[in-house]
Amino acid sequence: MTQRIAVIPGDGIGTEVMPEGRRALEAAARRFGLDLAFEAFDFASCDYYLEHGKMLPDDWKETLLEFDALFYGAIGWPDKVPDHVSLWGSLLKFRREFDQYVNLRPCRLLPGIESPLAGRRPGDIDFYVVRENTEGEYSSVGGVMFEGTEREVVIQETVMTRTGVDRVLKYAFDLAATRPRRKLTSATKSNGIAITMPWWDQRVAAMAEHYPDVDVDQFHIDILTANFVMHPDWFDVVVASNLFGDILSDLGPACTGTIGVAPSANINPEGRFPSLFEPVHGSAPDIAGKGIANPIGQIWSGAMMLEHLGHPEAGAAILAAIEAVLAEADPTVLTPDLKGRGTTERLGRAIAERI
Amino acid sequence: MTQRIAVIPGDGIGTEVMPEGRRALEAAARRFGLDLAFEAFDFASCDYYLEHGKMLPDDWKETLLEFDALFYGAIGWPDKVPDHVSLWGSLLKFRREFDQYVNLRPCRLLPGIESPLAGRRPGDIDFYVVRENTEGEYSSVGGVMFEGTEREVVIQETVMTRTGVDRVLKYAFDLAATRPRRKLTSATKSNGIAITMPWWDQRVAAMAEHYPDVDVDQFHIDILTANFVMHPDWFDVVVASNLFGDILSDLGPACTGTIGVAPSANINPEGRFPSLFEPVHGSAPDIAGKGIANPIGQIWSGAMMLEHLGHPEAGAAILAAIEAVLAEADPTVLTPDLKGRGTTERLGRAIAERI
Ligand SMILES: CC(C)[C@H](C(=O)O)[C@@H](O)C(=O)O
Ligand SMILES: CC(C)[C@H](C(=O)O)[C@@H](O)C(=O)O
Repeated sequence: MTQRIAVIPGDGIGTEVMPEGRRALEAAARRFGLDLAFEAFDFASCDYYLEHGKMLPDDWKETLLEFDALFYGAIGWPDKVPDHVSLWGSLLKFRREFDQYVNLRPCRLLPGIESPLAGRRPGDIDFYVVRENTEGEYSSVGGVMFEGTEREVVIQETVMTRTGVDRVLKYAFDLAATRPRRKLTSATKSNGIAITMPWWDQRVAAMAEHYPDVDVDQFHIDILTANFVMHPDWFDVVVASNLFGDILSDLGPACTGTIGVAPSANINPEGRFPSLFEPVHGSAPDIAGKGIANPIGQIWSGAMMLEHLGHPEAGAAILAAIEAVLAEADPTVLTPDLKGRGTTERLGRAIAERI
Repeated sequence: MTQRIAVIPGDGIGTEVMPEGRRALEAAARRFGLDLAFEAFDFASCDYYLEHGKMLPDDWKETLLEFDALFYGAIGWPDKVPDHVSLWGSLLKFRREFDQYVNLRPCRLLPGIESPLAGRRPGDIDFYVVRENTEGEYSSVGGVMFEGTEREVVIQETVMTRTGVDRVLKYAFDLAATRPRRKLTSATKSNGIAITMPWWDQRVAAMAEHYPDVDVDQFHIDILTANFVMHPDWFDVVVASNLFGDILSDLGPACTGTIGVAPSANINPEGRFPSLFEPVHGSAPDIAGKGIANPIGQIWSGAMMLEHLGHPEAGAAILAAIEAVLAEADPTVLTPDLKGRGTTERLGRAIAERI
């Protein structure tokens, strides 16, 4: 059975790492006899916007609904299009209109990658951030009053729903229940954000009753970020609102030294809509065009995509190949961010050969 | 001229570290010939709430307005009173009703304190977080609809005003202008929080025009937290909204290993209302009553208070005494969090003697 994958490179280094992501997927497909069909699109990029005055064609939804998964590069180029325009017109639209309500991001200390934290070794840090991905603090409701005057007031509403929060909590608890430590940490700020967050805590407590085997704790987001740095080994599955999850899923990979290589999955668990897989890193205008971007985030995202599409062994093989190439630490292969002198393509080829 | 200081120990270890904070202030007063008068209050604590059904007496405002500064311990004891009740009924009320619109928190790598970051040495990290302290994400506007049903929706409004944002930006720019590096970093999230945050960016840009000598940059809060871990040496003065500043001012001290010792100043710069000085740490119910809490956060907050009250040399002497005692690293003096076996009082006395 053919599985169709929409390839959307986006902006900047997105267009450079995407071919390597595809190369790894093709290698895995050959090895495991998968039937993957790729189709590339130039929309959801700032160049597309400059040409068409919008981020997406009008029929984007019907077009993409035909696919089993979306493989996305990176988006944003503030000198061409303001970020809130490009993002809300593409990535955030996909997440919301395809109801990809789970954003899943692994934080793992990999061999051969230097962590900025003192004395941590591979195996010490291994957790997931499960981020609510459609509502919460990322709303577009609100506005400005007394615009341009001294009295100017700007309001933006955080909107949480029981449906929206319960389903992501359920996903996180289910995930925690499959892991050896069976531990779930909730990110809150109920001492300061005094309406939505105490309610979030109640929903966590209500969901916890259905999972007596899962060990639950919670931290306010301020001290939680501090604990990511001080005690990253405490965490197993961390569940968070849209904004808190956004923060934690950059900070977590930073603590493992993997911000340039971390993957992310934007999942519609019921499969009513295609899910989207993209690296955590952005489009990096500063190094775009040089051919030196690290492709591992894109490749690892591909591994998550294969797992989601029902091929966990193929996903695991890609991750193992990444780990093997990193452990080898050949400076002619690794990209400059990993202190090597290789290129995007050189590193991508090395991983594909391993697969 | 006598300066009157209201002493409010609050909850938990707040009551244990406060005497040491006072001891250091008294030592500094003797050495520098300051005339400080202390008066202690039992309100703004959870025990007071249990007895009186409220966190503060009705005349708290008139009472405290008589003072030149408020010296606060720690607040909160969730088993007695829910955090959002105790906090909104005390600390957050002080900040708001006394218009302490700047929350100033130094992040500094001190001698003798182990940083969780690899390879960083004293001097490498030295910046301030300037947090907006009265509005923004900490609003009490909003509510629940369809309560208790599947359709439940919870809304909370972030409210920013030009007055509120401009004045804290001005404070931060003024501070940056006095520092050798003259650098200011703005914490934003204008790519996701698409109403308030693009507007915040505009206010920063407008203020920057008045400070051509200050070097300004900005990061989205997600990558900013990552950069605190990866590149803490990049920062000099970081200005942030209430929530983002809350996060950054726990994370910054965590990166310098000083979360247990960091101070904070809640300042009304015009002096219309008393300012409030408190350690960053909380009431720590888990170690309360054992006499082993680290008093340095309280003592360092006292140093900031003296600086604010017009005695910078006395504040500097307290900070120098803290650094000297830390550098000595006597395990019979240092508290257990610093890997010693001393008590709160032992460490407090050692610092007071140095002053
Ligand atoms: C206790 C809490 C409400 C408070 C805050 O969020 O402001 C604290 O974390 C702080 O930073 O002073
Ligand atoms: C680009 C931005 C809008 C996005 C987000 O905040 O969700 C990114 O930071 C991410 O985490 O995917």
